Amino acid sequence: MLTFASDYTTGCCPEILDRLIATNLEPQSGYGTDQYCASAAEKIKNACNAPEAQVEFIAGGTQTNQVVISSMLQRYEGVVAARTGHISCHEAGAIEYTGHKVFELPQVMGKIRAKDLSNLVENFYGDDNHDHMVFPGMVYISHPTEYGTLYTLSELTAISEVCRKHNMPLFLDGARLGYGLMSYSTDVTLQDIARLCDVFYIGGTKVGALCGEAVVFTHGNMPKHFLTMKKQNGALLAKGRLLGVQFDTLFTDDLYFRISKHAIDMAERLKGILSDAGFPFLLESPTNQQFVVLDNATMERLKKDVGFGFWETVDEDHTAVRFATSWSTTEKELDKLQELLK
Amino acid sequence: MLTFASDYTTGCCPEILDRLIATNLEPQSGYGTDQYCASAAEKIKNACNAPEAQVEFIAGGTQTNQVVISSMLQRYEGVVAARTGHISCHEAGAIEYTGHKVFELPQVMGKIRAKDLSNLVENFYGDDNHDHMVFPGMVYISHPTEYGTLYTLSELTAISEVCRKHNMPLFLDGARLGYGLMSYSTDVTLQDIARLCDVFYIGGTKVGALCGEAVVFTHGNMPKHFLTMKKQNGALLAKGRLLGVQFDTLFTDDLYFRISKHAIDMAERLKGILSDAGFPFLLESPTNQQFVVLDNATMERLKKDVGFGFWETVDEDHTAVRFATSWSTTEKELDKLQELLK
Amino acid sequence: MLTFASDYTTGCCPEILDRLIATNLEPQSGYGTDQYCASAAEKIKNACNAPEAQVEFIAGGTQTNQVVISSMLQRYEGVVAARTGHISCHEAGAIEYTGHKVFELPQVMGKIRAKDLSNLVENFYGDDNHDHMVFPGMVYISHPTEYGTLYTLSELTAISEVCRKHNMPLFLDGARLGYGLMSYSTDVTLQDIARLCDVFYIGGTKVGALCGEAVVFTHGNMPKHFLTMKKQNGALLAKGRLLGVQFDTLFTDDLYFRISKHAIDMAERLKGILSDAGFPFLLESPTNQQFVVLDNATMERLKKDVGFGFWETVDEDHTAVRFATSWSTTEKELDKLQELLK
Amino acid sequence: MLTFASDYTTGCCPEILDRLIATNLEPQSGYGTDQYCASAAEKIKNACNAPEAQVEFIAGGTQTNQVVISSMLQRYEGVVAARTGHISCHEAGAIEYTGHKVFELPQVMGKIRAKDLSNLVENFYGDDNHDHMVFPGMVYISHPTEYGTLYTLSELTAISEVCRKHNMPLFLDGARLGYGLMSYSTDVTLQDIARLCDVFYIGGTKVGALCGEAVVFTHGNMPKHFLTMKKQNGALLAKGRLLGVQFDTLFTDDLYFRISKHAIDMAERLKGILSDAGFPFLLESPTNQQFVVLDNATMERLKKDVGFGFWETVDEDHTAVRFATSWSTTEKELDKLQELLK
Repeated sequence: MLTFASDYTTGCCPEILDRLIATNLEPQSGYGTDQYCASAAEKIKNACNAPEAQVEFIAGGTQTNQVVISSMLQRYEGVVAARTGHISCHEAGAIEYTGHKVFELPQVMGKIRAKDLSNLVENFYGDDNHDHMVFPGMVYISHPTEYGTLYTLSELTAISEVCRKHNMPLFLDGARLGYGLMSYSTDVTLQDIARLCDVFYIGGTKVGALCGEAVVFTHGNMPKHFLTMKKQNGALLAKGRLLGVQFDTLFTDDLYFRISKHAIDMAERLKGILSDAGFPFLLESPTNQQFVVLDNATMERLKKDVGFGFWETVDEDHTAVRFATSWSTTEKELDKLQELLK
Repeated sequence: MLTFASDYTTGCCPEILDRLIATNLEPQSGYGTDQYCASAAEKIKNACNAPEAQVEFIAGGTQTNQVVISSMLQRYEGVVAARTGHISCHEAGAIEYTGHKVFELPQVMGKIRAKDLSNLVENFYGDDNHDHMVFPGMVYISHPTEYGTLYTLSELTAISEVCRKHNMPLFLDGARLGYGLMSYSTDVTLQDIARLCDVFYIGGTKVGALCGEAVVFTHGNMPKHFLTMKKQNGALLAKGRLLGVQFDTLFTDDLYFRISKHAIDMAERLKGILSDAGFPFLLESPTNQQFVVLDNATMERLKKDVGFGFWETVDEDHTAVRFATSWSTTEKELDKLQELLK
Repeated sequence: MLTFASDYTTGCCPEILDRLIATNLEPQSGYGTDQYCASAAEKIKNACNAPEAQVEFIAGGTQTNQVVISSMLQRYEGVVAARTGHISCHEAGAIEYTGHKVFELPQVMGKIRAKDLSNLVENFYGDDNHDHMVFPGMVYISHPTEYGTLYTLSELTAISEVCRKHNMPLFLDGARLGYGLMSYSTDVTLQDIARLCDVFYIGGTKVGALCGEAVVFTHGNMPKHFLTMKKQNGALLAKGRLLGVQFDTLFTDDLYFRISKHAIDMAERLKGILSDAGFPFLLESPTNQQFVVLDNATMERLKKDVGFGFWETVDEDHTAVRFATSWSTTEKELDKLQELLK
Repeated sequence: MLTFASDYTTGCCPEILDRLIATNLEPQSGYGTDQYCASAAEKIKNACNAPEAQVEFIAGGTQTNQVVISSMLQRYEGVVAARTGHISCHEAGAIEYTGHKVFELPQVMGKIRAKDLSNLVENFYGDDNHDHMVFPGMVYISHPTEYGTLYTLSELTAISEVCRKHNMPLFLDGARLGYGLMSYSTDVTLQDIARLCDVFYIGGTKVGALCGEAVVFTHGNMPKHFLTMKKQNGALLAKGRLLGVQFDTLFTDDLYFRISKHAIDMAERLKGILSDAGFPFLLESPTNQQFVVLDNATMERLKKDVGFGFWETVDEDHTAVRFATSWSTTEKELDKLQELLK
């Protein structure tokens, strides 16, 4: 069936499968010590222009958030995030499960504001009894956000400055990073992110890989004994090559950027199709996820012919839904959707 | 280089790669709700002769142990394991990290004894102050064990009886289950395991898959909201199909058993080669891992030409090392080893 | 120095000291199995008109919140509280430390509203992906709240109904319960609380005891192996008699209510004194804590002669401060304050 | 009834009650910032001859072990203890509950040996895969041990040396420290302990206080934000004065040592009485706890007239039981026991 339900409905880009086949019989050492992890890490450091960076691979996004946050926080610290942040809402309490509070900031289009962050920290230190409270120890943002929106360079810089002033590492969840970098309307580059964040991850699962995220500690700041903590979180794959080979392929000949660009091109056309169909947008998204508001009758009818994702209830009669493109979206699929919505 | 360092040095069996290619562009829903997970689960239930079973897929072994144990224990309970059990020693405290004690029992050739288990439980309940102590809430064994050894049907039955008497679920870690089932000298079948255990897993990572373990709750006893707890542990892959496709392939036409049988055949020949070379065995292993004791000079010399794994220091001059076969071990590789050891 | 800084600046009511002396040499068994804990529990059950209740004693308030909440929640559940709730802000993340999320609801005068609670729960179950989210498993309120305010019987009933509808235990933190019950303007009785809540505690530390809180599971719903979990949280005192003797004394001849009433009488006079001094109140509090807004110059000057508590920064020039009365506040102390503020 | 069941059956030494009465109405600031905590800390530092020490007060023993160990370990570390250590067996998994493994060493009369500790650490670092294992991060001993036995100065020095060589803090649980220091046959002083350990606690609950333990970080090594972590564990009492006043009293005029000495004198007479009765000792204890083996018939008969504690089952017909003396044991009670055993 035709589906735009998410960017993880199909497998992976064929270059990855080719590479898995080509390397399949080569013996490699385990637990991320193989040559492909090493090679992928080098390529990523180059792409980031961050020679001091350390790169680690982890199978999925929630796991990455859990491992990174829990290994960087002191036990008396919590992490600050948008109220709509993935870690705040949709990870089944994976952060709290490791013993840490998630401070929730107001969000605007899925983004936090430097000013709100600054206020939170200053109120904290201004309280005489702040030693009876959780210390704000780290900041989590996502780019693109859960709403497909993007920080501008100036917004990101302002947040980074607050973080550095108060010695709080800034962590950027890049589950869909490729789509953010290739957006038609962003002024933020991968190098900017590596410069302004202390740690971030380059999403693979939702950008053309079978699984896997590449965590970048941008300036040699990987926590001591990170591998042991990764293991302790159940996040150390024996066949680490599976992640190494995939990211080595994605960062060869700009594959990661090319497939992301394709998804964005498809998203721009999708946007036109949805707009032509007269569906109002929940918000303006410059990336691969488009959110439109459907009346429930239309939604039920449409459901029979095309897949899309439930997003949120708008009112009794209307629902916001998500259409997403990916590396595998084709012009032909969009033609079909266009036909359907005529 | 020639290597017998472990059973996870190569990729996966080619049938799996073929299937990943064949299914790559099919849209599938996420988080384990795809048709391949469903189909694989059915095949596994059939193979186990356990129509009431529930089957879940998780990416790696430590993660599986962590998710299963932490979701089945009450917070006042701990899990009983052999002192040499993987969860006791080599998982960086992943169980304790979730708040639970691992009770350590003496081991004989990597195995626990029903009698010791029974004593532990009876001493616990016999203590007037046992409500000041951790309750023994679950039993963990591995088959094959960390030493490549196997429980006999009568040993497994005895342990299962103690567990059922005291209402403690029995959990069998089958990271290398195929090699145990296909051993020349076992009387334990997959159906026996499904009948005698409350939960166990069929290892994929070390038996021909790229990653993945299939957890079997044998009698409809999967904990309520298991998916949420899996997510909370960071163990829910968005592209669950990656695990579904692999296990569906492994349980089609007995592939899992055929590749396991091949590894055992190779291990038997390996055993002969090592024996002919005059290396004493650390213990008698009927599965795909063989442990021999080398004097350190020999070990250093051999290292240059063939890969094997460090196991443990025997004394100042001797070291136990591991040679393992797998689905990908070839007669040619064994020929080379034989040549080398002449 | 004259101080109204808090209700825990002095020791305990003299009746308790007398009783500690009288019982000091009697041998009693440990860990809460002494006769005084048993007798205190009976008296509390009677006062609550809750014959099926179970009563447990714990040394302090944060500990009580931690033990009760963590022992009643399933691991996939979190607790709902006001954004200003003690567990949300001022307990250093003690709840998250046990692995559970605190959902924060908007507050009005420190209180949550049944409607907001109902919305949170209905939105949760209305979300197709709610199994990727923390389940709302319990509701926490305090009475009096952190702002000294009180729920009305109708508000409490409405919250209780939402809880029962959705099978979420309602937990009332009564660190200052006596002052709430003896307020001139409350329509909520101890029996109402026992009827409408599933668990609550009667605060001792801030109401005349040296330490100690009495937890009441109102209808035989104490979690299985609660003692073991208490121990696991480090909350089981060897000399449990210290808590038993105190609560047995407090619930003899209505001492708990009499000293609470005294504190309220003193608070009413305090309110008049502060009002006469022209200090605006931050909000209307009907209990023993009074919050006034001082300009910073006045605050600094006053500080030299009388103790009060910092509450929160109002603006650059003004600060909200707390004056509290307790069992030990005397008319003479109020005379002095009145003199000082003339 | 006559009882020797434990050293926490009676209240506290009368000097403490007198002091609680004398200070009861003085206003004091909360959470351990009162003048009595400060004064007690100074006296303890002097008694320890440790001017750089930091002293903190916590209500009970399990809580102290939990707070100290969890705040000093990194998350990838565990704590080493004797298999019979209190944290290994009798604290309901309070350490594991905070996410940390307890490594169990063999014990000899309740004590660990420097050699076994050294082996454990050297085996750990000698293992090529030690980054897949929990790091031994701290050592826990008790003095007196759970069996009432004592480390000699030379044993304690040897353990301390292993700890310092490997950078593992040494933590001594002194729940019954007074009885150890006043034993007729010890060569270890309080100053030795302060010099050889990194942190230890001076037990109050079992040595004459109502509750409370004094934690001594011996060389300015208290973890950063210890107060916040104490709060996070639910271990910060609002009326900290309750602990301050008690320890200030115990460390005035050597009260702590005098009452401990009394208990030891009583224990020596008790030992004679039990010996005269022909009861074999389970082991030789030089402190206030005496363990004898009774045949079950004698045990049942005796139980009717005198209280003692169940210790462990020896065989089907025999049980080891504990008789303990304390600050409150009188010659008259011993006379009665002697009479009874005639």
